[in-house]
Formats: sequence, structure tokens, C-alpha cells
Amino acid sequence: MKFRTLSLKTIVLTSVFSLSYGGLVNAEQNVQAQMMAKIAADNAKQKKDEWRTVALENMVLLTLPHGEVVIELAPQFSPKHVQQFSRLIQSGHYDGNKFYRVIDGFVAQAGPEYNSRVDRQVPLLALEGEWATDKDWSFTLVQSPDLFAEQTGFKDGFAIAHNVSEQKAWLAHCPGVVAMARGNDADSGSSHFYITIGQAPRYLDRIMSIFGRVIYGMQHVQALTRTAAIEGDKAVDSQQHTPIVSMKMMSDVAPEKQIHLQVKNTDSALFATKLAERLARKSAFFFKQPPQVLDVCQTPVLTRRIDG
Amino acid sequence: MKFRTLSLKTIVLTSVFSLSYGGLVNAEQNVQAQMMAKIAADNAKQKKDEWRTVALENMVLLTLPHGEVVIELAPQFSPKHVQQFSRLIQSGHYDGNKFYRVIDGFVAQAGPEYNSRVDRQVPLLALEGEWATDKDWSFTLVQSPDLFAEQTGFKDGFAIAHNVSEQKAWLAHCPGVVAMARGNDADSGSSHFYITIGQAPRYLDRIMSIFGRVIYGMQHVQALTRTAAIEGDKAVDSQQHTPIVSMKMMSDVAPEKQIHLQVKNTDSALFATKLAERLARKSAFFFKQPPQVLDVCQTPVLTRRIDG
Repeated sequence: MKFRTLSLKTIVLTSVFSLSYGGLVNAEQNVQAQMMAKIAADNAKQKKDEWRTVALENMVLLTLPHGEVVIELAPQFSPKHVQQFSRLIQSGHYDGNKFYRVIDGFVAQAGPEYNSRVDRQVPLLALEGEWATDKDWSFTLVQSPDLFAEQTGFKDGFAIAHNVSEQKAWLAHCPGVVAMARGNDADSGSSHFYITIGQAPRYLDRIMSIFGRVIYGMQHVQALTRTAAIEGDKAVDSQQHTPIVSMKMMSDVAPEKQIHLQVKNTDSALFATKLAERLARKSAFFFKQPPQVLDVCQTPVLTRRIDG
Repeated sequence: MKFRTLSLKTIVLTSVFSLSYGGLVNAEQNVQAQMMAKIAADNAKQKKDEWRTVALENMVLLTLPHGEVVIELAPQFSPKHVQQFSRLIQSGHYDGNKFYRVIDGFVAQAGPEYNSRVDRQVPLLALEGEWATDKDWSFTLVQSPDLFAEQTGFKDGFAIAHNVSEQKAWLAHCPGVVAMARGNDADSGSSHFYITIGQAPRYLDRIMSIFGRVIYGMQHVQALTRTAAIEGDKAVDSQQHTPIVSMKMMSDVAPEKQIHLQVKNTDSALFATKLAERLARKSAFFFKQPPQVLDVCQTPVLTRRIDG
């Protein structure tokens, strides 16, 4: 029985991928070859599935004086915001804008001069804060319950919160999300946007429109000049506010300057396995087991460059 | 009845401060004067109590090439770590050390060259990860339950987690805490320390020794050069790692260079009131009420300079 040469690891993999054992006993050699091929294909698929390539059309290159930042847009969740944001970028709307509200531990917000002609002419957007789910809707579960939702998880790399009882899901305000600022009216966002730079302000979930997340260069967002001084400290001169050198759709960037990225495929079986490992904390470093809890906003979704 | 001239607000304050009404009816004028004096004193106390002045002996001035950072130490929670850290600072142990492990969204870690003579000669410390509470122990409650504990709150400006069922409390790994790094052994910390710079890694609660928190200049910690490059990006040259220019006990700094700070008194009635307001989210901006939940790590404890 050459099957015995299959390692335990291989057997486990076949089990994970529900490979059928039917018909193997009769034509042993032939079927074993087929099985090995299937395992190899499954492994290759799993390997391929570990990373998801982000389309150039779905990435924004935000160039700051001190570094490059890449935002992945989320048209599958907030189509109207992505459409308007993309058009504004292509019109050069944001070039030269400043990060005029950067509060340590909270948000970095940018946009054109408030109430200027260019500011006023941008159409207002209806809120895209949540969407309806049905029984066929799925995501990769991370935590249930969470402080602010019945469930949290990931879909397409984005942190999601979900209330099964309401059949509503929404993008969660984890660090690095990109969302539209607004006035008191729910439907008053237009072009001013913010990036979260501190502990997740989850109380903003569902009442703001998140439409992207930083997938590269977050350290440069963290290094933006703060605009709010504490009491007793000298005020920050508005001349010091960090400008946006340029903002371009990655598909409009000259090929030699494009940044090509992959992010972990959060919808893969492998990612789910990694989540389970993260939850278990089996490393010897954990001399005592932490609670079996994961904060979705503290769970990394890695990025890698593939243009090197 | 001149008492009727007391505003509702004043009445509420007297109620909050448990001012006794006994004996007021008889010697009206005299008692009213006493009452007004008591209210004024209470108001003054409340006003005074809004901020707590941090002792110079309890602050560390961490000078980075790009800015000044102040750490408040927590001898009331982690006395042995504070004692050793303070002695090491006074011996010049950290001057010239580098932030050799700075991972975006996680921690910035510094210390002497690993396993060098100076590194090896520092005594190891027993873990100070939690402490026992009894029925007389109290703190300002923020949230119950929290994802990682039965209760969270503040004491002396520090975010605290508490499990009533275990009668154990501990400092929570919110952004900006200063804790000792260690090996796999619980009691293997010595001088390498880290500052949390991303979403709170609460799974490290109770198994690490937190002994301080950044109360000033957190933006400079956020701007530290990252040492970990993502896959496909070029490695960070260790020559680029940010050095510690100097680290001094504030009480040892020349008076003209000292930074004097106050932080919000989290044990005051006023702070509890502000927490309730934060929870209620009554501003018109909240066209829809968020869940009545507070994440202790997302609840700011403000600092102000008083040397201006």
C-alpha cells in the first residue's frame, strides 16, 4: 500500500479539502497519481489563495512629502463614495489639499479650503454606512460577540461588523480606514475625508461612510503633522499642516512608478486557520493563556509588494 | 425663602456632593451663607480636582531626534519595574539606545544591544502583571463587560481592567502604555521596554508588566522609524533605527528644560460626568445613537502643559 507513504500532514490536507477516497482501492497506482495531482493542485490553489492581488483601478496612490501611501477602495461596500472619490482624484481635486485636522490617536482629515468655490461645488453624497444581509451573506468570522456588534470578521480584507438579529453589516472603524467627513446631516459628506490613526473609534460605525483602507505606508499617515495642540502648548501654525503632494488612481500612475500590491486573502481557508492559531496563542511566549478573544481591529491583514 | 434663588444646577451640585440639608430651616440666613461657602468650596475643589499635577519625580523625559516625549510612571501599580527603570535612567543606561523593533500598528521597542555586557548585567524582574483587589478597592468605571475583562475603568489616569469574580485588576494595554519586554519566562524582563503604538493589544494584558504611559508627545512615538519592512519591500537599514538622544527623570532635568504637566483627574466626579456625556453622545452630529458602549482605550485622558 503506497498510500502509507502519504504523511499525516498530507492526509490532513486531503481531509480539509474534502478529497474523496472513493475508488482508490481498485486501480491503486493510477488513482494515487490522480490523488497526488489533486493534492498538488489543492496546495497550489491554497497557496495562490493566500494572497489576493489588488486591482490597479481599485488603488489610490497618496503621495505625501515624506512618503507614499496606498489606499484600497471598497466599491463593493460603498459604491457611490468610491465613484465620487475616484472622479475627484482624477480631476486633481485633492492635489495640494492639506491635512488640516490631525488629532493624535483619532483621525487625520484632509480636503479643500472649507466653503471655497471648489469645496461648495462637490455634490453631497447619501450615507453608505451599512447594508442588508441575508442568509446567503457570509464573511470570515473573527469574534462573537464584539463590544459594538454581535459579530465581527473580515471580507475582502476589510474588517466587518454584523448584527445577525438586524440582518445588517457594516465596515468597522479600525485603524487605517478611509471615510468621508460630514456635517450633522447624515447625507452631507462630499470630498473631505479622514483616515483613522488611533484606537478604533467604533462609535462612528454605521453613521459614517467608510469607503477604503490604507494597505501600504500607514507609518507615513501616522507621521502626519498634528494640527491640534494641547492646552498650554503653543498652537500649530497652519503653514505646518502637511500637504497632499498628489493623489492619483494607481491605474493612472506611470507604470514605472506604480506600486503593485497583494493583501492576505481573508476569505481563504488558510486565513481562517491563521485566525484560529492567533486565537489559541500556542507560542511558548504565552506562559499563561490570554482570554480566547480576538479584537478584529487588532488582527493584522498583511500586505506585500509584488513589483520588486 | 432665599433658598429659592439657588439654581437647579446648584441644587444638583449640592446633591452630587452629598451636602447635608439638616438644620437649614432654623437659622436661615446664617446657614445659607455656610451653604454657599460650602458650594463655593466644593466647586473650587471640583475645579481643582479636574486636573492632577504629575510629580516631577514620576515623569521621564524621553528625548528623540524629532521631539520630546514624557512618560508618567506608575509606582503605585508596578513598583519594582518603576524602581529599576528609574535607576537605569539615572545611570544613563538608555542614552544612545535604539528603537530597534518598531512595528507599525503594534509596538516600538528599545533597549541596549542584545546580550551585550551592559544588557546582561541588568537584574531580571519578577512580573508585575496584576494585583489583588478587595471590596474597598475602587476605580472610575467605564465599561462592563469589556471584550477582555468583566470591567474596565480608570485610576490615576491609567486604563484598568478588573475581574470582580477573581478579585484581580491590571493595567490595560491601551495605546501609549510603556511596558517591559521579556523572553518566554514570565520573570525575564530587565531593561528592554516597549510603547504600544496601534490598536490596543489587550491579549498581552496580565502577562506583561506595564509600568507607565506616554502623557505628552505621543505623536513623536508614532513617527518613529519602522524597523520591519513588508515582504517585497526593501529591508530597513539598522543605521536608520531611531536613537534615544537621552532619557532623564524629569526631576533631574535642568529647571528651564523641565516640562510640567497636568492630566485629567480620572478619579474626580467631573470626569465621571464627562464619561457619562461621552457615552450618551448627545451632540447633533449623532443623527443616530451609537451603542451605549465605551472602549476604555478609545477614551481620552487629556494632558496640559502648565509651564507656559
